[in-house]
Amino acid sequence: MLNHSSPLDLMYAALADGNRRSMVDRLSHGPATVKQLAEPLVMSLPAVLQHLRVLEESGLVRSQKTGRVRTCYLEPAALTAAEQWIADRRAGWMSRLDRLDDFLQGEDS
Amino acid sequence: MLNHSSPLDLMYAALADGNRRSMVDRLSHGPATVKQLAEPLVMSLPAVLQHLRVLEESGLVRSQKTGRVRTCYLEPAALTAAEQWIADRRAGWMSRLDRLDDFLQGEDS
Repeated sequence: MLNHSSPLDLMYAALADGNRRSMVDRLSHGPATVKQLAEPLVMSLPAVLQHLRVLEESGLVRSQKTGRVRTCYLEPAALTAAEQWIADRRAGWMSRLDRLDDFLQGEDS
Repeated sequence: MLNHSSPLDLMYAALADGNRRSMVDRLSHGPATVKQLAEPLVMSLPAVLQHLRVLEESGLVRSQKTGRVRTCYLEPAALTAAEQWIADRRAGWMSRLDRLDDFLQGEDS
C-alpha cells in the first residue's frame, strides 16, 4: 500500500476482497478471535493474518491480544465513513434528478 | 484486475483511488464529457482514460460516444449496491449493540 493513501483509499481497498468482506461480515455479528475468523475461510493462517493486517491498517477493524488469544472488533465509525462517502454522491445524483423532474413538470404546465 | 473478481470487488477497488472518486463526485452532479472530467485532474489524458476504464468495468460509470465526444454518466444502481453492503454490516453491528443494551438493562432491573 502506498504511503500517501488516504483513509478512504485504504478502506475501499480493504473491502475490495471477498475474504476480507467475509471477515467484516463475521465481525458485524460481534467480536471474534483470529481462529473464529479463519474457520470459514479456505486459506492458511498467515494468509488470514495478512488480510487482518490490511483490515486493521484501513481502520475498519481493530484487535486486542489477551494472553495467546487475539480478539478482533469492527470499528463502526470507519464503516460509517466508507458508507457516507457513497451515500453523499448518491444523494447528489438524486437531488439532480429531482431538479430535472421539477424543471420538466414546469415545462409541461 | 483478476477475472474472478466479483462486482463488489471491482466497485470497491474502483473507489479506492482519490482521482477516481473525484470523477465519481463530478458525475454525481450530472453527466460530463471526458474533457470535463479530466479538467480538474493533474494527469495526462491516457491516465484519465485508464481511470475511466476501471470505473466502467466496475459498473459505477457508463459512457456513450456521439461523434467525437464521449459523455460519462453515473450508474446509481451500482452506487447503491456498494453503499448497501456496508450499510447492512453496520446495521448488523448496531442491532447487536441494541440487544446487548437490552440484556444489560434486564440485568439491572
